[in-house]
Amino acid sequence: MSNIRLGIVGLGKIARDQHLGAIAATDGIELTAVASRNAQLDGVHCFRDIADMLASGVELDAVSLCTPPQGRFAQARAAIEAGKHLMLEKPPGATLSEVFALERLAREKGVSLYATWHSRAAAAVEPVRDMLAKRTIRSVAVSWKEDVRHWHPGQAWIWEPGGLGVFDPGINALSIVTRIMPDSFHLTAADLSFPANRAAPIAANLAFETAGGVPVTAEFDWRQTGPQTWDIRIETDEGLIVMTHGGSRLIVDGTAQIVEEDHEYRRLYERFVEIVPASAIDADLSPLVHVADAFMLGRRLTVEAFED
Amino acid sequence: MSNIRLGIVGLGKIARDQHLGAIAATDGIELTAVASRNAQLDGVHCFRDIADMLASGVELDAVSLCTPPQGRFAQARAAIEAGKHLMLEKPPGATLSEVFALERLAREKGVSLYATWHSRAAAAVEPVRDMLAKRTIRSVAVSWKEDVRHWHPGQAWIWEPGGLGVFDPGINALSIVTRIMPDSFHLTAADLSFPANRAAPIAANLAFETAGGVPVTAEFDWRQTGPQTWDIRIETDEGLIVMTHGGSRLIVDGTAQIVEEDHEYRRLYERFVEIVPASAIDADLSPLVHVADAFMLGRRLTVEAFED
Repeated sequence: MSNIRLGIVGLGKIARDQHLGAIAATDGIELTAVASRNAQLDGVHCFRDIADMLASGVELDAVSLCTPPQGRFAQARAAIEAGKHLMLEKPPGATLSEVFALERLAREKGVSLYATWHSRAAAAVEPVRDMLAKRTIRSVAVSWKEDVRHWHPGQAWIWEPGGLGVFDPGINALSIVTRIMPDSFHLTAADLSFPANRAAPIAANLAFETAGGVPVTAEFDWRQTGPQTWDIRIETDEGLIVMTHGGSRLIVDGTAQIVEEDHEYRRLYERFVEIVPASAIDADLSPLVHVADAFMLGRRLTVEAFED
Repeated sequence: MSNIRLGIVGLGKIARDQHLGAIAATDGIELTAVASRNAQLDGVHCFRDIADMLASGVELDAVSLCTPPQGRFAQARAAIEAGKHLMLEKPPGATLSEVFALERLAREKGVSLYATWHSRAAAAVEPVRDMLAKRTIRSVAVSWKEDVRHWHPGQAWIWEPGGLGVFDPGINALSIVTRIMPDSFHLTAADLSFPANRAAPIAANLAFETAGGVPVTAEFDWRQTGPQTWDIRIETDEGLIVMTHGGSRLIVDGTAQIVEEDHEYRRLYERFVEIVPASAIDADLSPLVHVADAFMLGRRLTVEAFED
């Protein structure tokens, strides 16, 4: 089969840090066009926006959206209506309803929709999923603490409604936990800390429970300086499982099992190449459902103003 | 077929105002037991909670939960695990995830799950749905404004996280609009007004759009004294359709079409009697999805403290 001719929309930090290199490293897909208001890329067709890209006559099979979630629906709809397979950065939208609508549109048009969760492609995720299928889980504790000034410099959209604040990294943790757990879980209580001058939370404490009553807790904090923490600790009947570095490393009962470089985005594009020929839908919204639940059920606290 | 033997949990305002009378007026179902911490009812078996009710040996086929949404999951799970068909007051839970979990549990156990939306049973809803299937919609405007002191006297849970504040009535409007519209819609912007001393909003302004770009707006306000408003105005290519009184009255191009007394809860129990023999699931969560979206995407404003 010939290569999937891909157009990407948005040439911000995530596109440059991750997508471009992953596309170049993946068999079966090639970057043909880019749409970006401010930036250009050598060697591919460049457009100001997705409308120009779709109207240009440049032949594309698929579109990958690397823009912020607010306002992504119109771009996604345009791509699907033009018959393009579609891949979405996380979170797949600013609302659940719009992503449900995209899923229906994609089915009607017979194109693939891939709502990606890059952290699910971290090296330890599938091995832990297999382990947990055979063990009894006693508790799960997520600690996701990073320095927003380092990781999101000048990204104003992230503090606006729909930008999700600390849930932007936090949803990565939730995408892992929803993948590895054999049982579903739901929020029972949450505190969300909003800086006095911001529309999105800078920290969150979440208490979940599985349908079977196992406690799952999560602490998200963007005010962490010094060592950064992206850990998930799982107590089981057969001992402790710890995932660190965002799911890329694994320690079972104190012994390191997986120490691997990060290939998350390459795995995403490999998966996309796999599902496009069948026009398959891969859109598990459960991480975003948990975030929406947290905003709905969470108690809002006001904390110190945050200046970039 | 013999009557469905029903136990209800919660004997608060909604149970006494609506459920008891509707059950008594509906063929095929009879009230057998009641669980309530503080209240008793003559002529039926009375228990302190659902655990006592289920353990008592009193034969029940089904359970109807009339308790506040917070903490309802444990009751719902207990009923399903005991093999009882289950009917839920709106909203069906404090989170989306827990209701998805209940749906899975109900399928596993082979029992009915009925997530009710009483406003969908209002007299004008199905006629308007039929009309809109044949017309082109230009805009939809919801105005849902009532006096919380009158309608929710002393109901502290409604101001707590999970109580939803003004979305408790507002979700009724959303349950109607999601039923009558031929196309789905999603939130594009929202303002939520939180009293300085409360954990839930007292007012909300919502802007939605259908997948096809038709604007849908909603204004929810709990500070309305004097005339109360529960109206939905739909501009179409063939004229104006207005639903008033919470969907029970209908005016098409200025002419009153339906003026009917309220039988919403009776219709709910008729529907429950219909689905129980087939162990069917009737759980459309789209109204609650829109509310979760509003909490996630909405901008929070702080307004004057509210005292009951």
